[in-house]
Amino acid sequence: MKPVRNIIALLGIVLTSFTTTSAQDPLPSWNDGPAKQAIVDFVRTTTTTGGANFVPPEERIATFDQDGTLWVEHPMYSQVMYCLERVPALVKEKPELAKVAPFSTVLELLHGDRAAMDKLNMDDLLKIAAATLTGISVETFEAEAKQWLAEAKNPRWKKPYTELTYQPMQEVLKFLRANGFKTFIVTGGGQDFVRQYSEKTYGIPPEQVVGTAAGTKYGYAKDGQPFLTKEPKLLLNDNDAGKPEGIHLMIGRRPVAAFGNSTGDQQMLEYTRAGSGARLAMLVLHDDAKREYAYGPATGLPDTKVGTFTQKLYDKAKKDGWIVISMKNDWNKIFAFEE
Amino acid sequence: MKPVRNIIALLGIVLTSFTTTSAQDPLPSWNDGPAKQAIVDFVRTTTTTGGANFVPPEERIATFDQDGTLWVEHPMYSQVMYCLERVPALVKEKPELAKVAPFSTVLELLHGDRAAMDKLNMDDLLKIAAATLTGISVETFEAEAKQWLAEAKNPRWKKPYTELTYQPMQEVLKFLRANGFKTFIVTGGGQDFVRQYSEKTYGIPPEQVVGTAAGTKYGYAKDGQPFLTKEPKLLLNDNDAGKPEGIHLMIGRRPVAAFGNSTGDQQMLEYTRAGSGARLAMLVLHDDAKREYAYGPATGLPDTKVGTFTQKLYDKAKKDGWIVISMKNDWNKIFAFEE
Repeated sequence: MKPVRNIIALLGIVLTSFTTTSAQDPLPSWNDGPAKQAIVDFVRTTTTTGGANFVPPEERIATFDQDGTLWVEHPMYSQVMYCLERVPALVKEKPELAKVAPFSTVLELLHGDRAAMDKLNMDDLLKIAAATLTGISVETFEAEAKQWLAEAKNPRWKKPYTELTYQPMQEVLKFLRANGFKTFIVTGGGQDFVRQYSEKTYGIPPEQVVGTAAGTKYGYAKDGQPFLTKEPKLLLNDNDAGKPEGIHLMIGRRPVAAFGNSTGDQQMLEYTRAGSGARLAMLVLHDDAKREYAYGPATGLPDTKVGTFTQKLYDKAKKDGWIVISMKNDWNKIFAFEE
Repeated sequence: MKPVRNIIALLGIVLTSFTTTSAQDPLPSWNDGPAKQAIVDFVRTTTTTGGANFVPPEERIATFDQDGTLWVEHPMYSQVMYCLERVPALVKEKPELAKVAPFSTVLELLHGDRAAMDKLNMDDLLKIAAATLTGISVETFEAEAKQWLAEAKNPRWKKPYTELTYQPMQEVLKFLRANGFKTFIVTGGGQDFVRQYSEKTYGIPPEQVVGTAAGTKYGYAKDGQPFLTKEPKLLLNDNDAGKPEGIHLMIGRRPVAAFGNSTGDQQMLEYTRAGSGARLAMLVLHDDAKREYAYGPATGLPDTKVGTFTQKLYDKAKKDGWIVISMKNDWNKIFAFEE
């Protein structure tokens, strides 16, 4: 048995030294290149005491869009999937909805009629969102969202949505936090929804999630216990100009680093860059049709879709010194579960 | 010289041992009694690993009202003083306001006519707040507020307002933080105003200040630089039911400990107590006319003023097991500058 033991011991040494090497590179899923270099340089310059670009720890605020920046957003936002998949339970409670559009259309879609999707417009989606996300207590919503997150699977990868986060961005979050940065999600998605998994999935606590937010109403149950009801009253549309406005409302400081992937993030990146000193503004470009998706300027198609990475945004990024991250070239690994 | 050195060395030992003793009591400005005991017991039970009331570090959220709970609110909120004292500068920019009420009334008041105060009603104060707090960029407001805070003095103590914080409450903030709690201010005061000094004054960063909040509007200066303008559009009235609603919006978790001093804090304390496990709800009673002020139930007068500590609130506190802090009996020191 001795030789085997020796081999195991040797393997142990090899593994240890590999781990050490790996620990020295905080961004192992990134290929060497201008994007990785920009992150490493930014962290070095902002944390070098006495340097011209030093940022005191309390001002090290970094904000991240979520959909398409931290996890997969194509072909549909996970929260839209959540709302659609809540419809059967809603119809069970209120059977009269089964024959009323847009709820009947959603049922057709969930029964496999993919063409039904084309019948749903933005007004329909807002109606479905209001019906599935409001008029219930905060606790009821949290329990429903948590259950869905535990059970639902992305159709392409057959995995929970929370496993479809980008490993290179997880490394950026950890690298920044290890250097005294406070990381925030600033998402167009629902704040209450993202808060259900942000801590476990990204290490970002609920109080560091800024998102599209509706009001709540304080009231009392029959037994006198107080509770909050989710109201269909929009307080913050956390997209476009709403992102810097939301950052001011919820954080109260201008970020020094911001990450996005779409026109909805443009103002957040502008606002971040407009501060003095070293600033980092990065955009994730979806140009890897094989490992994930290719859309936006990577396709060469005209800018038709709102809320994605348009050619116009790409040109602005290049002109203003923002860094574009190519998923295809800058990331050697996209998901943690990859071999 | 040797004897002197010995005495100094001896003094050094005495001072060191005094410091050590003092460090063992995290709440030296508190007299022994049920209030101090409640805080110490709460921290012990919620941080004892394996105990029935253990609270994981990420859920250790403690919220504090500010005016009257962390610093002096009587006879006028500091932020009201700020708005009134901004009026001369406002009139300098817009001279036509000098003859228009309520601005003319404020000028009379600032020129020593104390009776003018009685002419100002709530509508007037809202008008003055809108004129002094909105229609300007976030940066302009921050510069003006910071300057006022550096220069303005409380008329009774002749000290900057930020020195009029309660030393016993500063000790509670530090004690909780030393035990893994995240401390938040949840104030009826303006969020943007309190954020200008919260970090330096209380060790609470801007992103942990929840307050009455108005919207901002993102726009561009002539040179293309983006900026946020403070708008007269109320997003959150952080009083009464607005406190738990604001906590949900900005923090997204129910606190395990909450501190207040008025009817405006009642819902926050109810909401905190309604969670499961150990909960701490405390109210500061202003019953020390000599060292600070006596108002509310301490005076024996009927409940006439809204937003203070009413007899009704006192009775509810006693009935529901909230802890009432007597400034007179529970605090051996009120301000850090006391001898």
